Amino acid sequence: MTTTRELAAFLAQEFPQTKVMVESVGGGGARVRHAIGFDELRPGGTVSGPVLMGVADVGLYVAICGAVGLTTDVATTNLTTNFLRMPSGEADIIGDCRLLKVGRTLIIGEVSLFSEGDDRPVAHVVGTYARLGRQHP
Amino acid sequence: MTTTRELAAFLAQEFPQTKVMVESVGGGGARVRHAIGFDELRPGGTVSGPVLMGVADVGLYVAICGAVGLTTDVATTNLTTNFLRMPSGEADIIGDCRLLKVGRTLIIGEVSLFSEGDDRPVAHVVGTYARLGRQHP
Amino acid sequence: MTTTRELAAFLAQEFPQTKVMVESVGGGGARVRHAIGFDELRPGGTVSGPVLMGVADVGLYVAICGAVGLTTDVATTNLTTNFLRMPSGEADIIGDCRLLKVGRTLIIGEVSLFSEGDDRPVAHVVGTYARLGRQHP
Amino acid sequence: MTTTRELAAFLAQEFPQTKVMVESVGGGGARVRHAIGFDELRPGGTVSGPVLMGVADVGLYVAICGAVGLTTDVATTNLTTNFLRMPSGEADIIGDCRLLKVGRTLIIGEVSLFSEGDDRPVAHVVGTYARLGRQHP
Repeated sequence: MTTTRELAAFLAQEFPQTKVMVESVGGGGARVRHAIGFDELRPGGTVSGPVLMGVADVGLYVAICGAVGLTTDVATTNLTTNFLRMPSGEADIIGDCRLLKVGRTLIIGEVSLFSEGDDRPVAHVVGTYARLGRQHP
Repeated sequence: MTTTRELAAFLAQEFPQTKVMVESVGGGGARVRHAIGFDELRPGGTVSGPVLMGVADVGLYVAICGAVGLTTDVATTNLTTNFLRMPSGEADIIGDCRLLKVGRTLIIGEVSLFSEGDDRPVAHVVGTYARLGRQHP
Repeated sequence: MTTTRELAAFLAQEFPQTKVMVESVGGGGARVRHAIGFDELRPGGTVSGPVLMGVADVGLYVAICGAVGLTTDVATTNLTTNFLRMPSGEADIIGDCRLLKVGRTLIIGEVSLFSEGDDRPVAHVVGTYARLGRQHP
Repeated sequence: MTTTRELAAFLAQEFPQTKVMVESVGGGGARVRHAIGFDELRPGGTVSGPVLMGVADVGLYVAICGAVGLTTDVATTNLTTNFLRMPSGEADIIGDCRLLKVGRTLIIGEVSLFSEGDDRPVAHVVGTYARLGRQHP
């Protein structure tokens, strides 16, 4: 069983450039957080689309590691994003991630993204991941 | 407030060719059912993809009518389906539908589809609907 | 090299319930046709969404068989449809299918759907197929 | 008629943080380019997914401005990405963008993304944009 602490350390080591923080993992899901500052904004004071999609992608990766063990051998094959509301530029983005299927070759999950403090989702993402066949040692 | 009975009658009148049955509606969602027989199967004894996608599409339409009133003035603009597991050819298909956003021009929702009696989803669908601007009288 | 005639015969044998006709196949793509009659219509005299999605799904399957050989061992894993314009209820639906990637485990393709005689697409579909590992004898 | 030069200047003014460069625009499409350096890479020496999705999103926005005039009043509502091949970390990313429909309320387009010098697409994106109703002065 991978703990939240182990997963956060693994993510920091393998993906040093990500700003996504692991809040919890387990039970076929994960909860992640991304602080929002100048770099994440676009004109109008809202969070840019690529930031939202990146949070979802990393969040699903974290959920996958929680389910199958620490691995770098999954690759995103499809990411479908629906943008629902303008996120606040002054609140962290929270990603609630849930795996829909953990198959032998494909893993599929969904993410609801929120601005912290508002329970209406700002975006919804479905992602598909291919298992490449090698386990992280 | 549209009742389940009103919605079932409206669906039967406006879409006489659909086999989808309304089980419940309200609270920003709906639950629908589709009986499975020879016409819904494909080789291998499983339910065909177009049947699954049709159940989700009608289910989201039902959820929309439950949220905004009886209307024929919405049109599906996007339907994204992930096929997760082979549905049984001997169980009804159940669709659990939930609206993610009811906007002025777009409505977005998701559906988890199940073979009755198995709680692992056979497919997951996200749909977008455009409001055409006319209300049903 | 699979010919159009071989593929049409294979489709009729393996999927006897489909009404999709193979017009051409090869070069990493296919062109298919579906006649439109009462069964394909919905209120308003237009073609139903599930029919359009079914044509695209079969068309991509035909293109795949043209590329990798006659096989029943592929399964649709994702189908993303954008509905662009109301199809005529009085014209055949034509599907122009093109494979984007033929990988070892996944095959991805896109389809533009037209009402015959009008060169503006009525829908656009992207589909992903998993190769299950067994070849048709 | 919006020229490529006008569009490049408009993009630089309205989205000063984007690194996307406009190569050409017109005829219902656009071609854009994104240089790849350390910031765009992820472990393994390939281009990160959010960079690819961002190039497609900006490219479709450019194509839209070419079709309907310079405007900031469109919002991405859906972005569906299929990742096809690992992009090279040493080549620019090129986006070939084509609009599928320019409607009164929705605009839909597709993008094929390439590593410069290789004609096999690294990703394929379909995007939907809502027109918010205000024109840029």
